[in-house]
Amino acid sequence: MNYCPHCAAPVIVETPEADNRPRSICTGCGRIHYQNPKMVVGCIPVCDERVLLCKRNIEPRKGFWTLPAGYLECNETTEAGAIRETLEETGVVVTELQPYRLFDIVHIAQIYLMYLARLQTLAFHATEESLEVRLFVEKDIPWSVIAFPVIEKALQHYFADRLHNDFPFRQDQITETIRTRY
Amino acid sequence: MNYCPHCAAPVIVETPEADNRPRSICTGCGRIHYQNPKMVVGCIPVCDERVLLCKRNIEPRKGFWTLPAGYLECNETTEAGAIRETLEETGVVVTELQPYRLFDIVHIAQIYLMYLARLQTLAFHATEESLEVRLFVEKDIPWSVIAFPVIEKALQHYFADRLHNDFPFRQDQITETIRTRY
Repeated sequence: MNYCPHCAAPVIVETPEADNRPRSICTGCGRIHYQNPKMVVGCIPVCDERVLLCKRNIEPRKGFWTLPAGYLECNETTEAGAIRETLEETGVVVTELQPYRLFDIVHIAQIYLMYLARLQTLAFHATEESLEVRLFVEKDIPWSVIAFPVIEKALQHYFADRLHNDFPFRQDQITETIRTRY
Repeated sequence: MNYCPHCAAPVIVETPEADNRPRSICTGCGRIHYQNPKMVVGCIPVCDERVLLCKRNIEPRKGFWTLPAGYLECNETTEAGAIRETLEETGVVVTELQPYRLFDIVHIAQIYLMYLARLQTLAFHATEESLEVRLFVEKDIPWSVIAFPVIEKALQHYFADRLHNDFPFRQDQITETIRTRY
Protein backbone atom coordinates (compact mmCIF):
# COMPACT_ATOMS: atom_id res chain seq x y z
CA MET A 1 0.00 0.00 0.00
CA ASN A 2 1.49 3.31 -1.17
CA TYR A 3 -1.48 5.68 -0.87
CA CYS A 4 -4.45 6.04 1.43
CA PRO A 5 -7.54 4.44 -0.15
CA HIS A 6 -9.65 7.06 1.63
CA CYS A 7 -7.88 10.36 0.80
CA ALA A 8 -5.02 9.43 -1.62
CA ALA A 9 -2.27 10.91 0.59
CA PRO A 10 0.93 8.82 0.92
CA VAL A 11 1.02 6.23 3.70
CA ILE A 12 3.95 5.44 5.98
CA VAL A 13 4.60 2.18 7.80
CA GLU A 14 4.92 2.76 11.55
CA THR A 15 3.75 1.21 14.78
CA PRO A 16 0.81 3.31 16.02
CA GLU A 17 0.63 4.40 19.63
CA ALA A 18 -1.12 1.72 21.72
CA ASP A 19 -0.27 -0.94 19.13
CA ASN A 20 2.65 -3.35 18.85
CA ARG A 21 2.89 -3.92 15.11
CA PRO A 22 3.83 -1.76 12.13
CA ARG A 23 0.75 -0.62 10.17
CA SER A 24 0.14 1.50 7.08
CA ILE A 25 -0.78 4.95 8.42
CA CYS A 26 -2.03 7.80 6.24
CA THR A 27 0.08 10.97 6.38
CA GLY A 28 -3.01 12.99 5.39
CA CYS A 29 -6.10 11.83 7.27
CA GLY A 30 -4.28 9.66 9.85
CA ARG A 31 -6.32 6.54 9.17
CA ILE A 32 -4.68 3.19 10.00
CA HIS A 33 -5.07 0.56 7.28
CA TYR A 34 -4.93 -2.93 8.74
CA GLN A 35 -4.07 -6.00 6.71
CA ASN A 36 -5.39 -9.36 7.81
CA PRO A 37 -5.24 -12.94 6.60
CA LYS A 38 -7.72 -14.18 4.02
CA MET A 39 -9.93 -17.20 4.35
CA VAL A 40 -10.03 -19.80 1.61
CA VAL A 41 -12.99 -22.20 1.65
CA GLY A 42 -13.35 -25.40 -0.29
CA CYS A 43 -14.21 -29.06 -0.07
CA ILE A 44 -13.29 -32.66 -0.71
CA PRO A 45 -16.22 -33.78 -2.91
CA VAL A 46 -16.73 -37.50 -2.39
CA CYS A 47 -18.69 -40.04 -4.42
CA ASP A 48 -18.48 -43.61 -3.13
CA GLU A 49 -14.79 -44.45 -3.08
CA ARG A 50 -13.85 -41.55 -5.33
CA VAL A 51 -12.79 -37.92 -4.86
CA LEU A 52 -13.43 -35.13 -7.39
CA LEU A 53 -10.39 -33.17 -8.53
CA CYS A 54 -10.01 -30.26 -10.97
CA LYS A 55 -7.14 -29.53 -13.33
CA ARG A 56 -6.44 -25.82 -12.95
CA ASN A 57 -7.02 -23.56 -15.94
CA ILE A 58 -5.70 -20.52 -14.07
CA GLU A 59 -2.25 -19.48 -12.88
CA PRO A 60 -0.61 -20.16 -10.52
CA ARG A 61 -0.14 -23.87 -11.15
CA LYS A 62 -2.18 -24.05 -14.34
CA GLY A 63 -2.43 -27.67 -15.46
CA PHE A 64 -1.98 -29.06 -11.94
CA TRP A 65 -4.72 -30.87 -10.03
CA THR A 66 -6.52 -29.38 -7.06
CA LEU A 67 -9.59 -29.57 -4.85
CA PRO A 68 -12.27 -26.90 -5.43
CA ALA A 69 -11.52 -23.91 -3.16
CA GLY A 70 -11.26 -20.14 -3.28
CA TYR A 71 -11.45 -16.89 -1.35
CA LEU A 72 -14.44 -16.41 0.91
CA GLU A 73 -16.56 -13.42 -0.18
CA CYS A 74 -18.05 -10.81 2.13
CA ASN A 75 -21.71 -11.71 1.68
CA GLU A 76 -21.62 -15.45 2.28
CA THR A 77 -21.11 -18.05 4.98
CA THR A 78 -18.06 -20.29 4.82
CA GLU A 79 -20.29 -23.22 3.82
CA ALA A 80 -21.98 -21.19 1.07
CA GLY A 81 -18.53 -20.13 -0.15
CA ALA A 82 -17.34 -23.74 -0.38
CA ILE A 83 -20.49 -24.69 -2.34
CA ARG A 84 -20.08 -21.70 -4.69
CA GLU A 85 -16.42 -22.40 -5.38
CA THR A 86 -17.17 -26.05 -6.11
CA LEU A 87 -19.96 -25.08 -8.49
CA GLU A 88 -17.75 -22.54 -10.27
CA GLU A 89 -14.87 -24.98 -10.67
CA THR A 90 -16.68 -28.27 -11.33
CA GLY A 91 -20.21 -27.42 -12.47
CA VAL A 92 -21.87 -29.41 -9.68
CA VAL A 93 -23.58 -28.73 -6.38
CA VAL A 94 -22.25 -30.45 -3.26
CA THR A 95 -24.38 -31.32 -0.23
CA GLU A 96 -23.99 -32.67 3.33
CA LEU A 97 -21.02 -30.41 4.04
CA GLN A 98 -19.13 -31.22 7.21
CA PRO A 99 -16.23 -29.07 8.51
CA TYR A 100 -13.12 -31.22 8.19
CA ARG A 101 -9.79 -29.36 8.29
CA LEU A 102 -8.59 -25.86 9.12
CA PHE A 103 -5.09 -25.22 7.78
CA ASP A 104 -3.03 -22.23 8.88
CA ILE A 105 -0.69 -21.09 6.10
CA VAL A 106 1.07 -18.27 7.92
CA HIS A 107 3.71 -17.45 5.25
CA ILE A 108 1.01 -16.49 2.75
CA ALA A 109 -1.50 -15.18 5.35
CA GLN A 110 -4.21 -17.66 4.38
CA ILE A 111 -6.52 -19.85 6.43
CA TYR A 112 -7.99 -22.80 4.53
CA LEU A 113 -11.25 -24.29 5.74
CA MET A 114 -11.97 -27.56 3.94
CA TYR A 115 -15.27 -29.40 4.20
CA LEU A 116 -16.11 -32.99 3.38
CA ALA A 117 -19.04 -33.02 0.95
CA ARG A 118 -21.13 -35.27 -1.27
CA LEU A 119 -21.75 -34.74 -4.97
CA GLN A 120 -25.44 -34.09 -5.64
CA THR A 121 -25.11 -35.28 -9.24
CA LEU A 122 -22.38 -36.66 -11.50
CA ALA A 123 -22.90 -33.89 -14.06
CA PHE A 124 -19.52 -32.28 -13.37
CA HIS A 125 -17.63 -30.89 -16.33
CA ALA A 126 -14.71 -28.69 -17.42
CA THR A 127 -15.32 -25.02 -16.63
CA GLU A 128 -13.62 -21.70 -17.25
CA GLU A 129 -11.53 -22.39 -14.16
CA SER A 130 -10.87 -26.10 -14.76
CA LEU A 131 -9.43 -27.74 -17.87
CA GLU A 132 -10.70 -31.10 -16.68
CA VAL A 133 -12.80 -32.38 -13.78
CA ARG A 134 -12.52 -36.04 -12.82
CA LEU A 135 -13.25 -38.58 -10.09
CA PHE A 136 -10.23 -40.46 -8.76
CA VAL A 137 -9.94 -43.56 -6.63
CA GLU A 138 -7.10 -43.32 -4.11
CA LYS A 139 -4.58 -45.35 -6.10
CA ASP A 140 -5.01 -43.06 -9.13
CA ILE A 141 -4.56 -39.71 -7.34
CA PRO A 142 -1.92 -37.82 -9.36
CA TRP A 143 0.25 -37.03 -6.31
CA SER A 144 3.18 -35.70 -8.34
CA VAL A 145 1.07 -33.02 -10.02
CA ILE A 146 -1.10 -31.75 -7.15
CA ALA A 147 -1.18 -27.94 -7.27
CA PHE A 148 -0.47 -26.95 -3.66
CA PRO A 149 0.88 -28.53 -0.44
CA VAL A 150 -2.39 -27.74 1.38
CA ILE A 151 -4.35 -29.79 -1.17
CA GLU A 152 -1.91 -32.68 -0.93
CA LYS A 153 -2.22 -32.65 2.87
CA ALA A 154 -6.03 -32.45 2.83
CA LEU A 155 -6.15 -35.51 0.55
CA GLN A 156 -3.59 -37.41 2.67
CA HIS A 157 -5.63 -36.70 5.82
CA TYR A 158 -8.83 -37.81 4.12
CA PHE A 159 -7.46 -41.15 2.94
CA ALA A 160 -5.84 -41.75 6.35
CA ASP A 161 -9.15 -41.06 8.14
CA ARG A 162 -11.01 -43.26 5.69
CA LEU A 163 -9.10 -46.29 6.95
CA HIS A 164 -11.07 -45.89 10.20
CA ASN A 165 -14.20 -44.38 8.64
CA ASP A 166 -13.92 -41.55 11.18
CA PHE A 167 -13.56 -37.94 10.00
CA PRO A 168 -13.11 -35.67 13.02
CA PHE A 169 -12.53 -31.94 12.56
CA ARG A 170 -8.88 -31.10 13.07
CA GLN A 171 -6.49 -28.22 12.58
CA ASP A 172 -3.03 -28.30 11.03
CA GLN A 173 -0.36 -26.01 9.60
CA ILE A 174 1.24 -25.78 6.18
CA THR A 175 4.79 -24.47 6.35
CA GLU A 176 6.04 -25.40 2.87
CA THR A 177 6.16 -22.73 0.24
CA ILE A 178 4.50 -23.50 -3.06
CA ARG A 179 6.62 -25.91 -5.03
CA THR A 180 7.52 -24.87 -8.54
CA ARG A 181 7.80 -28.06 -10.51
CA TYR A 182 6.65 -26.68 -13.83
CA MET B 1 -12.30 2.77 -0.96
CA ASN B 2 -12.06 6.02 -2.97
CA TYR B 3 -8.52 5.86 -4.34
CA CYS B 4 -6.15 3.13 -5.51
CA PRO B 5 -3.74 2.19 -2.70
CA HIS B 6 -1.13 1.41 -5.36
CA CYS B 7 -1.22 4.50 -7.63
CA ALA B 8 -3.68 6.96 -5.96
CA ALA B 9 -5.98 7.20 -9.01
CA PRO B 10 -9.74 7.16 -8.29
CA VAL B 11 -11.42 3.75 -8.18
CA ILE B 12 -14.80 2.82 -9.60
CA VAL B 13 -17.04 0.00 -8.46
CA GLU B 14 -17.84 -2.34 -11.36
CA THR B 15 -18.05 -6.04 -12.05
CA PRO B 16 -14.82 -7.03 -13.83
CA GLU B 17 -14.94 -9.21 -16.92
CA ALA B 18 -14.87 -12.90 -15.92
CA ASP B 19 -16.19 -12.05 -12.45
CA ASN B 20 -19.70 -11.94 -11.05
CA ARG B 21 -19.42 -9.38 -8.26
CA PRO B 22 -18.79 -5.64 -8.16
CA ARG B 23 -15.21 -4.81 -7.14
CA SER B 24 -13.21 -1.64 -6.62
CA ILE B 25 -11.25 -1.15 -9.86
CA CYS B 26 -8.54 1.47 -10.34
CA THR B 27 -9.17 3.90 -13.21
CA GLY B 28 -5.41 4.47 -13.47
CA CYS B 29 -3.49 1.20 -13.21
CA GLY B 30 -6.50 -1.13 -13.60
CA ARG B 31 -5.81 -3.11 -10.43
CA ILE B 32 -8.78 -4.84 -8.82
CA HIS B 33 -8.97 -4.38 -5.04
CA TYR B 34 -10.80 -7.26 -3.39
CA GLN B 35 -12.41 -7.04 0.01
CA ASN B 36 -12.79 -10.20 2.06
CA PRO B 37 -14.14 -11.16 5.47
CA LYS B 38 -11.91 -10.92 8.53
CA MET B 39 -11.21 -13.66 10.98
CA VAL B 40 -11.63 -13.07 14.69
CA VAL B 41 -9.95 -15.58 17.01
CA GLY B 42 -10.55 -16.01 20.71
CA CYS B 43 -11.28 -18.48 23.45
CA ILE B 44 -13.41 -19.58 26.35
CA PRO B 45 -10.82 -19.73 29.14
CA VAL B 46 -11.96 -22.32 31.67
CA CYS B 47 -10.84 -22.97 35.24
CA ASP B 48 -12.69 -25.77 37.03
CA GLU B 49 -16.35 -24.76 36.89
CA ARG B 50 -15.60 -21.17 36.00
CA VAL B 51 -15.17 -19.13 32.82
CA LEU B 52 -12.99 -16.02 32.49
CA LEU B 53 -14.70 -12.89 31.18
CA CYS B 54 -13.40 -9.37 30.52
CA LYS B 55 -15.23 -6.08 30.95
CA ARG B 56 -14.44 -4.08 27.81
CA ASN B 57 -12.43 -0.89 28.17
CA ILE B 58 -12.75 -0.11 24.45
CA GLU B 59 -15.66 0.97 22.27
CA PRO B 60 -17.86 -0.50 20.93
CA ARG B 61 -19.65 -1.84 24.00
CA LYS B 62 -17.26 -0.39 26.58
CA GLY B 63 -18.29 -1.60 30.04
CA PHE B 64 -19.93 -4.78 28.72
CA TRP B 65 -18.57 -8.28 29.35
CA THR B 66 -16.93 -10.40 26.69
CA LEU B 67 -14.68 -13.36 26.00
CA PRO B 68 -11.11 -12.58 24.91
CA ALA B 69 -11.02 -12.36 21.09
CA GLY B 70 -9.72 -10.12 18.31
CA TYR B 71 -8.62 -9.89 14.69
CA LEU B 72 -6.19 -12.51 13.47
CA GLU B 73 -2.89 -10.94 12.37
CA CYS B 74 -0.94 -11.86 9.23
CA ASN B 75 2.06 -13.47 10.92
CA GLU B 76 0.36 -15.89 13.28
CA THR B 77 -1.66 -19.08 13.38
CA THR B 78 -5.27 -18.94 14.56
CA GLU B 79 -4.26 -20.67 17.80
CA ALA B 80 -1.38 -18.22 18.38
CA GLY B 81 -3.82 -15.36 17.71
CA ALA B 82 -6.28 -16.66 20.30
CA ILE B 83 -3.47 -16.98 22.88
CA ARG B 84 -2.17 -13.47 22.08
CA GLU B 85 -5.61 -11.86 22.34
CA THR B 86 -6.25 -13.59 25.66
CA LEU B 87 -2.89 -12.42 27.01
CA GLU B 88 -3.52 -8.84 25.84
CA GLU B 89 -6.99 -8.70 27.36
CA THR B 90 -6.56 -10.70 30.57
CA GLY B 91 -2.83 -10.81 31.36
CA VAL B 92 -2.68 -14.62 31.37
CA VAL B 93 -1.54 -17.39 29.06
CA VAL B 94 -4.01 -20.10 28.08
CA THR B 95 -3.03 -23.68 27.19
CA GLU B 96 -4.62 -26.86 25.83
CA LEU B 97 -6.52 -24.98 23.13
CA GLN B 98 -9.13 -27.01 21.32
CA PRO B 99 -11.13 -25.66 18.33
CA TYR B 100 -14.71 -25.32 19.53
CA ARG B 101 -16.98 -23.07 17.44
CA LEU B 102 -16.81 -21.33 14.09
CA PHE B 103 -19.42 -18.59 13.80
CA ASP B 104 -20.29 -16.96 10.46
CA ILE B 105 -21.38 -13.35 10.94
CA VAL B 106 -22.16 -12.45 7.35
CA HIS B 107 -23.69 -9.00 7.95
CA ILE B 108 -20.40 -7.70 9.36
CA ALA B 109 -18.14 -9.94 7.21
CA GLN B 110 -16.52 -11.64 10.19
CA ILE B 111 -15.73 -15.27 10.96
CA TYR B 112 -15.24 -16.04 14.64
CA LEU B 113 -13.14 -19.04 15.60
CA MET B 114 -13.47 -19.75 19.32
CA TYR B 115 -11.29 -22.26 21.17
CA LEU B 116 -11.81 -23.93 24.50
CA ALA B 117 -8.74 -23.32 26.66
CA ARG B 118 -7.33 -23.72 30.18
CA LEU B 119 -5.85 -20.93 32.26
CA GLN B 120 -2.16 -21.56 32.91
CA THR B 121 -2.23 -19.39 36.05
CA LEU B 122 -4.79 -17.38 37.99
CA ALA B 123 -2.72 -14.21 37.69
CA PHE B 124 -5.23 -12.48 35.41
CA HIS B 125 -5.79 -8.79 35.91
CA ALA B 126 -7.31 -5.65 34.42
CA THR B 127 -5.44 -4.50 31.30
CA GLU B 128 -5.52 -1.57 28.89
CA GLU B 129 -8.27 -3.38 27.02
CA SER B 130 -10.23 -4.67 30.04
CA LEU B 131 -11.59 -2.66 32.99
CA GLU B 132 -12.02 -5.86 34.95
CA VAL B 133 -11.22 -9.55 34.44
CA ARG B 134 -13.12 -12.12 36.48
CA LEU B 135 -14.01 -15.79 36.74
CA PHE B 136 -17.74 -16.58 36.72
CA VAL B 137 -19.65 -19.71 37.59
CA GLU B 138 -22.58 -20.31 35.24
CA LYS B 139 -25.26 -18.91 37.54
CA ASP B 140 -23.37 -15.61 37.87
CA ILE B 141 -22.77 -14.97 34.13
CA PRO B 142 -23.99 -11.38 33.53
CA TRP B 143 -26.22 -12.36 30.57
CA SER B 144 -27.90 -8.96 30.32
CA VAL B 145 -24.62 -7.11 29.84
CA ILE B 146 -22.72 -9.42 27.47
CA ALA B 147 -21.09 -7.33 24.73
CA PHE B 148 -22.04 -9.18 21.53
CA PRO B 149 -24.50 -11.87 20.37
CA VAL B 150 -21.60 -14.11 19.24
CA ILE B 151 -20.18 -14.11 22.78
CA GLU B 152 -23.57 -14.85 24.30
CA LYS B 153 -24.02 -17.77 21.90
CA ALA B 154 -20.52 -19.17 22.52
CA LEU B 155 -21.20 -19.19 26.26
CA GLN B 156 -24.66 -20.75 25.82
CA HIS B 157 -23.16 -23.52 23.67
CA TYR B 158 -20.42 -24.14 26.20
CA PHE B 159 -22.76 -24.52 29.15
CA ALA B 160 -25.11 -26.73 27.11
CA ASP B 161 -22.21 -29.00 26.08
CA ARG B 162 -20.96 -29.11 29.65
CA LEU B 163 -24.12 -30.91 30.72
CA HIS B 164 -22.83 -33.91 28.72
CA ASN B 165 -19.12 -33.18 29.22
CA ASP B 166 -18.73 -33.43 25.43
CA PHE B 167 -17.37 -30.47 23.43
CA PRO B 168 -17.44 -31.31 19.71
CA PHE B 169 -16.38 -28.72 17.14
CA ARG B 170 -19.41 -27.18 15.48
CA GLN B 171 -20.30 -24.32 13.20
CA ASP B 172 -23.14 -21.82 13.58
CA GLN B 173 -24.33 -18.45 12.30
CA ILE B 174 -24.99 -15.15 14.01
CA THR B 175 -27.68 -13.13 12.26
CA GLU B 176 -28.49 -10.55 14.94
CA THR B 177 -27.02 -7.12 14.61
CA ILE B 178 -25.21 -5.76 17.63
CA ARG B 179 -27.72 -4.77 20.27
CA THR B 180 -27.43 -1.25 21.64
CA ARG B 181 -28.65 -1.46 25.18
CA TYR B 182 -26.48 1.27 26.62
